[in-house]
Amino acid sequence: MENEAKKWRFRPNEAINTAADITIRGVLNAIMSCLDSEDKRPVIPLGHGDPSVFPCFRTTKIADEAIVEAVRSAKFNCYSPTVGILPARKAIAEYLSLDLPYKLSADDVFLTLGCTQAIEVTLSVLARPGANILLPRPGFPFYEARAAFSNLEVRHFDLLPSKGWEVDLDAVEALADDNTAAIVIINPGNPCGSVFTYKHMKKIAEMARRLGIIVIADEVYDHLTFGSNPFVPMGVFGSIVPVLTLGSISKRWIVPGWRVGWLVTSDPNGVLKDTKIVECITGCLNISTDPATFIQGAIPHILERTNQDFFNKITGLLRQSADVCYDEMKGIECITCPHKPEGSMFVMVKLNTSLMEDINDDMDFCLKLAKEESVIVLPGRSVGLKNWLRITFAIEASSLKEGFGRIKSFYQKHAKIQ
Amino acid sequence: MENEAKKWRFRPNEAINTAADITIRGVLNAIMSCLDSEDKRPVIPLGHGDPSVFPCFRTTKIADEAIVEAVRSAKFNCYSPTVGILPARKAIAEYLSLDLPYKLSADDVFLTLGCTQAIEVTLSVLARPGANILLPRPGFPFYEARAAFSNLEVRHFDLLPSKGWEVDLDAVEALADDNTAAIVIINPGNPCGSVFTYKHMKKIAEMARRLGIIVIADEVYDHLTFGSNPFVPMGVFGSIVPVLTLGSISKRWIVPGWRVGWLVTSDPNGVLKDTKIVECITGCLNISTDPATFIQGAIPHILERTNQDFFNKITGLLRQSADVCYDEMKGIECITCPHKPEGSMFVMVKLNTSLMEDINDDMDFCLKLAKEESVIVLPGRSVGLKNWLRITFAIEASSLKEGFGRIKSFYQKHAKIQ
Repeated sequence: MENEAKKWRFRPNEAINTAADITIRGVLNAIMSCLDSEDKRPVIPLGHGDPSVFPCFRTTKIADEAIVEAVRSAKFNCYSPTVGILPARKAIAEYLSLDLPYKLSADDVFLTLGCTQAIEVTLSVLARPGANILLPRPGFPFYEARAAFSNLEVRHFDLLPSKGWEVDLDAVEALADDNTAAIVIINPGNPCGSVFTYKHMKKIAEMARRLGIIVIADEVYDHLTFGSNPFVPMGVFGSIVPVLTLGSISKRWIVPGWRVGWLVTSDPNGVLKDTKIVECITGCLNISTDPATFIQGAIPHILERTNQDFFNKITGLLRQSADVCYDEMKGIECITCPHKPEGSMFVMVKLNTSLMEDINDDMDFCLKLAKEESVIVLPGRSVGLKNWLRITFAIEASSLKEGFGRIKSFYQKHAKIQ
Repeated sequence: MENEAKKWRFRPNEAINTAADITIRGVLNAIMSCLDSEDKRPVIPLGHGDPSVFPCFRTTKIADEAIVEAVRSAKFNCYSPTVGILPARKAIAEYLSLDLPYKLSADDVFLTLGCTQAIEVTLSVLARPGANILLPRPGFPFYEARAAFSNLEVRHFDLLPSKGWEVDLDAVEALADDNTAAIVIINPGNPCGSVFTYKHMKKIAEMARRLGIIVIADEVYDHLTFGSNPFVPMGVFGSIVPVLTLGSISKRWIVPGWRVGWLVTSDPNGVLKDTKIVECITGCLNISTDPATFIQGAIPHILERTNQDFFNKITGLLRQSADVCYDEMKGIECITCPHKPEGSMFVMVKLNTSLMEDINDDMDFCLKLAKEESVIVLPGRSVGLKNWLRITFAIEASSLKEGFGRIKSFYQKHAKIQ
């Protein structure tokens, strides 16, 4: 039988495994495998970006019923056009135009399978041989994974904790060269919970114009803001620099599992059309798969009928959780938060391992925390910053408090004796 | 402004456009753009693989209600595991095991976005540098497109019209070399409407074993058979050769727009695990997007509750349509059908342009047919056979008759005067 096995000729594509090594899901799985089944307390999940399992974060019934209506109509059992069905594209164009100084048209909108596929398509389209792309550090590692998959070189610029996680603009200028295609801006910020000011975003747009590169605006957390800075879409600066806006209903409607999002050309001057980027996006969608047609069919109702009360409830919950999170952290000496979160669902905190006896680094902290206290937190290294932690506060307030109580106990148990 | 435009540094990835040029959708779009808006008769669509728009092909209410129940439960708004949720994987394993001499387990099943993503993942996983893959001619050009996207070399073997579109086995042996990873078998056949015998499939499996390659069994048309040969899954021969089975609910349930399918290791000897193909599939799914979680949540009910009456109705309709199609074609001299269809939704017919005055080839035939008669047919070149046509018979019988009536008029108008 061994001789038999040797004769199989096929081998896996190792490049896939290399790309897949980078994902948050992989790290979380490793941490969750450390959980102690003897601990009968509930697991406190502070590592995810998906609060949909908590009853208080349940989506609006309007969204559920829009799906029910679409599926029962039997009008949407067919394949969809590769760019998405027209009523959905139109509804998204109108929805996003509300926050812009110009009107988007349905032709600017491409339906995608969540923001995930919008990232896939964008990076595939820009990955001509030799090209590079500028990514934030800390950031969202799916970009790194898909860039590796597409052989697109990655260069990192820093977000500055001392400046509310703003982009280090000088560093970006130094990184870019003739082969740079684009810069990625995630706002509201994952993993930092930051919300950029109008002024800072305008500076980013002007710099990108000087450099001759596209701004990829990842706005999957659009409108999830609860601090002093309002959400400003990067598309506002679309007449300065061409913007590819990536978004989704996943976060604002708390339905990440529905897998519907968009890739939008926020580009009133038509630069992306003239440079054939739009044609290449269409080509890429022609050889990809699409969101379920009936979910596309529900999009107009979901966008038009959801009322402000639902959105206010969700941002209210997030504001409250962010406050709890910020206050509770102050009582735990080994972590410090440089900037109170004002948007998204996350905060980055610095871990001081020198205060602890037997914790080597962020990964070690997270593995032992899972094992001893059944609390899941993401090590900062998996988003680009070693010895930091990414903490999700999008969870019910009582669980959040319980989680920080356990983190405090954990710290006290491992603290160096003074 | 022109100087401005020149300074943009980004360029599209041309390789995407090259890959996207190959799709059926692109060719159909070109043909549909020739339709004459003055012609007030309904367009007869004989080019598609999607009968869901016809009332007689409407899916079962059991499937609709399984979706309604899943979405209203609010249990499936969350992200799914990258391989799919366990109840769906288990249900698919049980469903497919009904036709196999061994039991599949949930671990053998990976949920995908229709059969499309199952193809994407399979080709990505096998595309290690230098590898090649064997594809049927005629075939389904999405394979060629995704192989181009992944830099995977393609080698074509013929299906033989004189032998009921069976695989030219000798040609396959001559094509394979040390870098060949797999052979693709589409059964029931798209575009030929053929259904392979048990005996022929066993020969394919034995040959693949001799060559040391995987069989990729595209069974998206599973169970849609209505001739003398029953559907036999390639997985039946999984102990001879490792099989990757690709499937979906798209065709049997007539819901292609729901985008749910599977990639299954039909491999009781565990060869695909030992050779790390399974690990690479998991890695690829980790950096891809998933079917909507609530559609996955509906899968157990859809598979378990749909009754045989629905399936019998659909295959009955297809049998009737295939009969109409075969009979009507006999009256049109310029086309000949070498083999009556026994499965799937398609038939391949040979076009004799020498009988016509002013028709250069299959593409010219299809463009003029659309313009003059508002009938859409796919030119054979887009599935690998120039001067053939692929005709869909999955359409209401009255429209099908009307379509062939128009094709006959078209031929008579363009026939050479004897």
